[in-house]
Amino acid sequence: MSAEEASKVTVDAAVNAKPEQKQQREVQGKPNKPKSSKKATKAIELKTPKGTKDYADREMAIREQIFSTITQVFKKHGAVALDTPVFELKDILTGKYGEDSKLIYDLKDQGGEECSLRYDLTVPFARYLAMNGVSKMKRYHIAKVYRRDQPAMTKGRMREFYQCDYDIAGTYERMIPDTEIVVTVVDALQRLNLGTGFIVKINHRKILDGMFAVCGVPEDKIRTISSAVDKLDKLPWADVFVEMTQEKGLDPEVANRIGEYVKDKGGVELVQKLLQHPELSKNVKAKEGLEDLALFFEYAEYMGLDKNLVSFDMSLARGLDYYTGIIYEVVLVEESVKPIKVAQATAQLSISKPDGDAGKKKGSSDVVDESQVRVGSIAAGGRYDELVGMFAAAVRGKKPNAKQMVPCVGVSIGVERIFSILMAKAKKENDVRSSPVQVFIMSVREGMLKERMEIAKRLWDAGIPSEFMYKTKPRLDRQYEACDKDQIPWGIMIGKDEWDRGCVKVKNMIQKDEQFPMGQDIPLDGLVADLKARIGL
Amino acid sequence: MSAEEASKVTVDAAVNAKPEQKQQREVQGKPNKPKSSKKATKAIELKTPKGTKDYADREMAIREQIFSTITQVFKKHGAVALDTPVFELKDILTGKYGEDSKLIYDLKDQGGEECSLRYDLTVPFARYLAMNGVSKMKRYHIAKVYRRDQPAMTKGRMREFYQCDYDIAGTYERMIPDTEIVVTVVDALQRLNLGTGFIVKINHRKILDGMFAVCGVPEDKIRTISSAVDKLDKLPWADVFVEMTQEKGLDPEVANRIGEYVKDKGGVELVQKLLQHPELSKNVKAKEGLEDLALFFEYAEYMGLDKNLVSFDMSLARGLDYYTGIIYEVVLVEESVKPIKVAQATAQLSISKPDGDAGKKKGSSDVVDESQVRVGSIAAGGRYDELVGMFAAAVRGKKPNAKQMVPCVGVSIGVERIFSILMAKAKKENDVRSSPVQVFIMSVREGMLKERMEIAKRLWDAGIPSEFMYKTKPRLDRQYEACDKDQIPWGIMIGKDEWDRGCVKVKNMIQKDEQFPMGQDIPLDGLVADLKARIGL
Repeated sequence: MSAEEASKVTVDAAVNAKPEQKQQREVQGKPNKPKSSKKATKAIELKTPKGTKDYADREMAIREQIFSTITQVFKKHGAVALDTPVFELKDILTGKYGEDSKLIYDLKDQGGEECSLRYDLTVPFARYLAMNGVSKMKRYHIAKVYRRDQPAMTKGRMREFYQCDYDIAGTYERMIPDTEIVVTVVDALQRLNLGTGFIVKINHRKILDGMFAVCGVPEDKIRTISSAVDKLDKLPWADVFVEMTQEKGLDPEVANRIGEYVKDKGGVELVQKLLQHPELSKNVKAKEGLEDLALFFEYAEYMGLDKNLVSFDMSLARGLDYYTGIIYEVVLVEESVKPIKVAQATAQLSISKPDGDAGKKKGSSDVVDESQVRVGSIAAGGRYDELVGMFAAAVRGKKPNAKQMVPCVGVSIGVERIFSILMAKAKKENDVRSSPVQVFIMSVREGMLKERMEIAKRLWDAGIPSEFMYKTKPRLDRQYEACDKDQIPWGIMIGKDEWDRGCVKVKNMIQKDEQFPMGQDIPLDGLVADLKARIGL
Repeated sequence: MSAEEASKVTVDAAVNAKPEQKQQREVQGKPNKPKSSKKATKAIELKTPKGTKDYADREMAIREQIFSTITQVFKKHGAVALDTPVFELKDILTGKYGEDSKLIYDLKDQGGEECSLRYDLTVPFARYLAMNGVSKMKRYHIAKVYRRDQPAMTKGRMREFYQCDYDIAGTYERMIPDTEIVVTVVDALQRLNLGTGFIVKINHRKILDGMFAVCGVPEDKIRTISSAVDKLDKLPWADVFVEMTQEKGLDPEVANRIGEYVKDKGGVELVQKLLQHPELSKNVKAKEGLEDLALFFEYAEYMGLDKNLVSFDMSLARGLDYYTGIIYEVVLVEESVKPIKVAQATAQLSISKPDGDAGKKKGSSDVVDESQVRVGSIAAGGRYDELVGMFAAAVRGKKPNAKQMVPCVGVSIGVERIFSILMAKAKKENDVRSSPVQVFIMSVREGMLKERMEIAKRLWDAGIPSEFMYKTKPRLDRQYEACDKDQIPWGIMIGKDEWDRGCVKVKNMIQKDEQFPMGQDIPLDGLVADLKARIGL
């Protein structure tokens, strides 16, 4: 029995115990002793659920810095905030995520509606627009999403993780918002100072569809073959070829033709070349997609986007069902320059396997360097013109009318990977102080709790973060230690003599003050002003 | 069949459809048409799950203001941030919430661990401390919690709602952190400018336990009788009496004695009076609790807490199992001054009934003014000295050792009610602008998309929130309208002549500028500096 199964059995036992029994036991427990003393006989596992973790003080400081940087950039482009519930009606999520739908977390049926935890922030946004008849909105949303994926926590791939989304909904002229989205995400990533390069891969669903048609993929296989192509960032061509031909029954001839196309990567010159391509340029959809990308490169230049950051990549497909136009993926350059290692490492990995299937997993994922798999991707998105109309249609049971079609384009930044990078950087530079406290209020002798409390009240009222030791008669050395431990920069020393004169001593606890090595006498009346000046408030 | 049941049936139908079938249908759908055109025959409900809602732009602005005010106060008292997963192992939550355990949301068993959505932020905090062996921490946590309660959304009672928690963990001298917690929450609530009064009700679990013992409540009935007493803020004494005697089998004589005690409300003078009480003062636990409250009032005075804001209320019991010492509840004065109306209104209401039981509900809750029920409470908390040790014990299957006992005290501010109040205030004052944009970049004629994009890039780089119309050749009046609609204060007008001279016009779009009614010529080189000065960046 694996550790996970064992823990499950224990949990089941607890769950099956009748609630009344449990309550009874607690009530009978002797007062003032831990209520668990009897229950403790069945051990519970003290951990967070698989694929989740806690973020404490120093980590939170980094994370708040990331969110604030990203939020500022989104707002700079005119986005307003939207918050949606963490779970949606199950039906809202159904049929939106292709092969990944199996990764959705469902809530238990407890006699109400059937709900699922959100899988991303895009579908809830589209649901919001459709539900409220909103036809135009630039919104950002920073929140957690949930996927029952195989976690690789040390590298930032989790089952509960944050996404930072920015989307533009509305009927606008071709490719203008699409390009601004990329400008926005590049701006945000650059301001985060990752200390590592990245590139934005772009492609277009219509180019893919056109290409598949030109290669001879039957129409009913286009989406599934597209899913196979999407794995090319994690698997070598040979594996994808096998998936296409053996698993998905594609003619090897056709697969080989696809193989020729998806090798292509480049900039605007590749777009121009393909616009001249004897077959592709004759496919209406492919031509439309290529013209879109030509406009993208034109506008990107106007908006000052560094062209070396963008790569038109014919192998980028994106798994989700709802994309209809341009698609993006931002990858860290560190990873993307090691394609061979990626291919080798990941050939053994079973992809996206929910843990219910864990027992059936072939091979061992222990040997895989998981940093090389997909987590190299730090942002992704694209255009989805039909999702909102799809909701409107589902309600009325008819095709959406023109007013209900709300074209959207957006991007999602996955911050867990970014967090890992910045946390490692901060640890190296040892520059994360977590305590917000600026002043520690100490008594020199005799406790003086009343006086310390009075001073604290004055400082709190003035907005100065302050603490004192929760002890009636603390020793001075203990107070110094507490101050040191949290690196609190300023100390207030209350002594009987000074207090009788209406003064306290203020001391720099980090740097020695040559002029006032024992602290400086400050009258109570001027204390707040004095400290504000020292702290820079 | 009720509307809810009907929707459930539809959802079931969708869920039971095999995923492969669904995918097939999508793939076969004609490209470029909404994929829902076939699925749309089964209508879905376009809504958020019961008891949840979306928060959009203007609401989010208010909410962010609330969080930022509260966070600042928590940090001022030395708190650091902690974030925990939205779900916990089910076992972690089991047995912590007394009668309310039935309100916990469980996740569906999909072949992994059994998990539940968090019910509050306190149990996850205690789990975090026990799991990491942390014996000392001041932490704040602002996040959503989940309860399958009967929602009263218009008044701010929801199934998904935010709590703002501040807790002090650690072994300290009696009542010092307990009192600072109240000082902190009062400071936060005052800075929120609710425009309505509130009082902090306090009581003590040991006083309650002592009182029950003195009155003659059998030891095995203490917790359940305590739950009944806790309903006195929502039910008249007569109803609680019936619950105690008929439902819970308490001797009516004993119940009457309790009735005498729980009428008492007051300040430090009530504490002193009860310390002289012939029976209560002889009960060791009651005496300990009363001495604690005497210290509370002493320290509260030192820390400048307005004594009119605090009421020692013998009827306050708090439903949760884990409290061991002082307990708090902050109620809005508006509600608390109307006890008769509250009693009448709520006598008919079935309390905390999860919606699986909806059919069995006696009476109608439609006639109840739900604003009067419990939502008058905007913050609550107390001391829980055994919860952390309980986790440590549950893992080892033994009683916790001294090192594993981490005494805690904390408070939780429920912001949904606060949000409703502040949102109503803001609407009345009409002072919520949601768009963050400061500058709208317009072309006077001929489109000039390239030039507008170039200017936007300059402003974004300088951190100035800016937009332009996503159109190659927009009409000037349409651009003015867009600017007006979002109340964007500054306009940049690009005309051919000015551009050729290296200039644009900058215009105040809200207030008329007498000197430059058509806008002022600004050279491109100085544009950023000029706008920053105007905006005050």
